[in-house]
Amino acid sequence: MPYELYYWPGLQGRGEFVRLALEEAGADYIDVARGPEKKGQGVDAMMAILESNSEHHIPFAPPFLKDGDLIIPHVANILLYLGPKLDLSPQDEDLRYVANGLQLTITDIVAEVHDTHHPIANSLYYEDQKDAAKQRSADFLRNRLPKYLDYFERVLRQNPSGDRHIVGDRLTYVDLSLFQLAEGFTYAFPRAMHGFKTRYPALAALHDAIRERPNIMRYLGSKRRIAFNEGGIFRHYRELDYP
Amino acid sequence: MPYELYYWPGLQGRGEFVRLALEEAGADYIDVARGPEKKGQGVDAMMAILESNSEHHIPFAPPFLKDGDLIIPHVANILLYLGPKLDLSPQDEDLRYVANGLQLTITDIVAEVHDTHHPIANSLYYEDQKDAAKQRSADFLRNRLPKYLDYFERVLRQNPSGDRHIVGDRLTYVDLSLFQLAEGFTYAFPRAMHGFKTRYPALAALHDAIRERPNIMRYLGSKRRIAFNEGGIFRHYRELDYP
Repeated sequence: MPYELYYWPGLQGRGEFVRLALEEAGADYIDVARGPEKKGQGVDAMMAILESNSEHHIPFAPPFLKDGDLIIPHVANILLYLGPKLDLSPQDEDLRYVANGLQLTITDIVAEVHDTHHPIANSLYYEDQKDAAKQRSADFLRNRLPKYLDYFERVLRQNPSGDRHIVGDRLTYVDLSLFQLAEGFTYAFPRAMHGFKTRYPALAALHDAIRERPNIMRYLGSKRRIAFNEGGIFRHYRELDYP
Repeated sequence: MPYELYYWPGLQGRGEFVRLALEEAGADYIDVARGPEKKGQGVDAMMAILESNSEHHIPFAPPFLKDGDLIIPHVANILLYLGPKLDLSPQDEDLRYVANGLQLTITDIVAEVHDTHHPIANSLYYEDQKDAAKQRSADFLRNRLPKYLDYFERVLRQNPSGDRHIVGDRLTYVDLSLFQLAEGFTYAFPRAMHGFKTRYPALAALHDAIRERPNIMRYLGSKRRIAFNEGGIFRHYRELDYP
């Protein structure tokens, strides 16, 4: 039975971190909310679960994964669950907690990126919080983004198994998520990301290596990969980037 | 060997969710950054790990747990790891993902609460972002807090094992974290939380039941429980609460 991924259609958003793992592994999955209503898919199918009064374990928000009867919400939790099944987790039990910890740091940075364009309220338009967004983005680019990138570069360099992977000596879902982070930052903040390759050589090499993996390359060239846009987490607003 | 918890001294903060689990279980642990320097503890001991150039798996930020050589960062990850050891996880493997998903929703709300007083930058004083904080808090209290509390009340009510616990039929670390959420919201936003017991009867009953557990009651009355204060996540600023 295929995995069912539920996420808002029309944007990469948080769902993309899950898609990359499923695509790399060549897993059989349905992107339910993007599917046709006549097959019982579409956004209504997603809302039916979120609003269910009988479902035993309702998620708070998308993305969530359905595997048979089990519903698993939150990106890091989904990847924790899928990792061993897709052969994208460390073999070592302890290292799985290390991987999960790294993924949760990615979760944090993703929330911070979202808040660069929505610092006041998700319920307001960007245009109605633009001044606060400029202030928050300036702080993010000056203090937070370098802190996170420095950190991941350091983790790569200090990996006792070498700097080709962020944890252990083989590809994990965390490597794929780091690829997506670099993609997203480059889209949203091209000026602030200028010099990324020379400033963060290990991260940049990891990014290049992931992009060249056959299943990832095929996915990125397919219609399943939604282009970055201003409905997602990573948005390009010229006025929020470096001048 | 005792568990070593590393977190900023002087505030409950995110560390408190871990402390409650350790205390409920009567586990042997050291709150390292609050310990004496002459024993090799204190904040310097925590910073030494965060800034280490040789440590294999460095955390991005506190809190983190050290169990022997293994370092585990992030509250939800620490609780995922400790849960089975402290007998505070569901027995059922699938339900452990449900518990982790709920804990990650708590992680999200905690980040949102933090941003009610720091919507622009962690690096700025509250006083320097007070106007944005008022706007963000107003939205949080109007849209987000009720959405989260409605959700948890619903999850309790829809728990097929009954509404005494948020997942399964026994105490888990998620119940303890929900207790802490209610404590924190009541401290930070006493006016907005007015009527909590009648509006959220299942959550309120869970909160009362946790407070009366012997180990929790003993902990809350001890010097180990730091009082809420304006250095933590849950801060009481009169102007951010309902009028």
